[in-house]
Amino acid sequence: MRIALDAMGGDHGPEELISGALLAVEQADLQISLVGDEPLLQSYLERRASDSKTAACLRIVHASQVVGMDEHPVDAIRKKKDSSIVIAFDLVLRGEVEAVVSAGNSGATMAAALRKLGRIKNVSRPGIASVFPTLKNPVVMMDVGANVDCRPLHLYQFGVMAAAFARIYNIQQPRVGLLTIGEETGKGNTLVKEAYELLKDSPLNFIGNVEGRDVFQGNVDVIICDGFVGNICLKVSEGLAEAAMQMLRNEIIKSPMAKLGYLLARPAFKAFKRRVDYAEYGGAPLLGINGTGIVCHGKSSAQAIKNAILEAVHMVRNNVNDVIARNLGADDREVSTGV
Amino acid sequence: MRIALDAMGGDHGPEELISGALLAVEQADLQISLVGDEPLLQSYLERRASDSKTAACLRIVHASQVVGMDEHPVDAIRKKKDSSIVIAFDLVLRGEVEAVVSAGNSGATMAAALRKLGRIKNVSRPGIASVFPTLKNPVVMMDVGANVDCRPLHLYQFGVMAAAFARIYNIQQPRVGLLTIGEETGKGNTLVKEAYELLKDSPLNFIGNVEGRDVFQGNVDVIICDGFVGNICLKVSEGLAEAAMQMLRNEIIKSPMAKLGYLLARPAFKAFKRRVDYAEYGGAPLLGINGTGIVCHGKSSAQAIKNAILEAVHMVRNNVNDVIARNLGADDREVSTGV
Repeated sequence: MRIALDAMGGDHGPEELISGALLAVEQADLQISLVGDEPLLQSYLERRASDSKTAACLRIVHASQVVGMDEHPVDAIRKKKDSSIVIAFDLVLRGEVEAVVSAGNSGATMAAALRKLGRIKNVSRPGIASVFPTLKNPVVMMDVGANVDCRPLHLYQFGVMAAAFARIYNIQQPRVGLLTIGEETGKGNTLVKEAYELLKDSPLNFIGNVEGRDVFQGNVDVIICDGFVGNICLKVSEGLAEAAMQMLRNEIIKSPMAKLGYLLARPAFKAFKRRVDYAEYGGAPLLGINGTGIVCHGKSSAQAIKNAILEAVHMVRNNVNDVIARNLGADDREVSTGV
Repeated sequence: MRIALDAMGGDHGPEELISGALLAVEQADLQISLVGDEPLLQSYLERRASDSKTAACLRIVHASQVVGMDEHPVDAIRKKKDSSIVIAFDLVLRGEVEAVVSAGNSGATMAAALRKLGRIKNVSRPGIASVFPTLKNPVVMMDVGANVDCRPLHLYQFGVMAAAFARIYNIQQPRVGLLTIGEETGKGNTLVKEAYELLKDSPLNFIGNVEGRDVFQGNVDVIICDGFVGNICLKVSEGLAEAAMQMLRNEIIKSPMAKLGYLLARPAFKAFKRRVDYAEYGGAPLLGINGTGIVCHGKSSAQAIKNAILEAVHMVRNNVNDVIARNLGADDREVSTGV
């Protein structure tokens, strides 16, 4: 399979991204196009990919521009036609790759995907899903930031799209829950109450309302919410995890005995950290675009990039977009690029 | 000061609540009215308060009914006129106590407060605030569940009310932030963007947008959001904290060495747990009602109840309601009960 990696995105620069690509080609039969400044990428690549077999799996596609993390997505995409993220989706459009992975500006990645590939037929609003670790299997939450003001139909479609994506975890009948502030029917704001009516009569395996505290229990596979609520959930969770580790560290360093104890328990802490690390879960899939795109956290490690690339492979192999199209009654659509 | 405690609310029953009241009267000069089933409360009290000095600080006020945790708040309050929570607010109305604390049905507590005491003049929507631990000082978030569909004015008033409440932490010019999904001006949904305009021109010490990850950093004193978003934040945080502790425990018990390490580091873990325990921060104040009320988590320990009672005392002493009234331009209101 052929994947384009936006080799200029992310906080750690091209080296970390290339390392991720190298890890990925070791694990799967892949051709990766590294999109970005050719001389720069070439210099990194020469240092890293001395093995000719590995190097043969990577090629560089030149792009003279980069979209910064703080640029306005739509403006940036319009102005920077030769940016790495735009060129990456051009490769999909030309049939040269099946998917794009980027750790750059996520809004710009969505904007470039929409501009180049458009939406799957009948999708009102493409969105971004995110995968959360739980006590059991991971849970897919959608939307986590692309759509801040939603109508009930959008929430319903997020459910359809995220359920199709959950197939990559071998979940055939994902349990879909609607995020609100009480488990009983009729709880929530106007948007959620109206979305409930659409969901309960749908072919989805809809299990009803779920609350914030259910997110990490693992008793639901897909959680539906608008992008404002979803993004806040995501950021609150990240912020709490970081702050809690910091608070615990502050307590541990106060006592030599606790420090010793921490050293002994360290492998358990590391295993725990792996368990909750977003890097282990790949990136956040763009769902509803007529192709396959994954956005990664800006601070993604090589490991996270590798997992995101493999996630893109799973999305393509599992025909996620075909399932979305079918479930939104778009059987008559043209076969989309990338599936 | 005189406080009414709904002695029938909460998951642990009257005994835990009475223990909380006993802890409170040891720490402050208080008269506590335990509201609930007299024979039942009397039997608990006889077992616990053998010390005559302590017992003199407690009295029982009979209420023949209890509002269950799952009852519809407004219906329950209308039907159960002799329920402990209704009688507790009757005591405020009659001038027999200055504040109410309840670990029962929080919606019913709000409904009873509104029915008996009404709103502070010019308050459009009373709400519930919650106090979160952070890396620095605690942060007050409002609303966390009373108002699910809000207008911009409501968010502005939540800011005024929560800032007045923050006075109990000796913060005179609390930094007020608006919860949204990007720090730059203009980020967020329609509600938040419109509320931003009201806040930026207000006398509040408004520091602009804050993101979910800022909640636990301690760089903001008051966070404004609608009750739907706030409640989900609260529940996601609780759920994540519990799930993370469970995951860590699962890793630790896998290895004898890690178990030993955990035992050595246990005091640090306990200190950490105290630091993040909601019980340490008392309960959630009802803000905007013409009186003082605190709702506690249903599973509150005696320690949590004690802290909530002391929090009510601080609210009354700091004239929180007078500050709210003044800052909403309601100088001409009648002096409210309880402040």
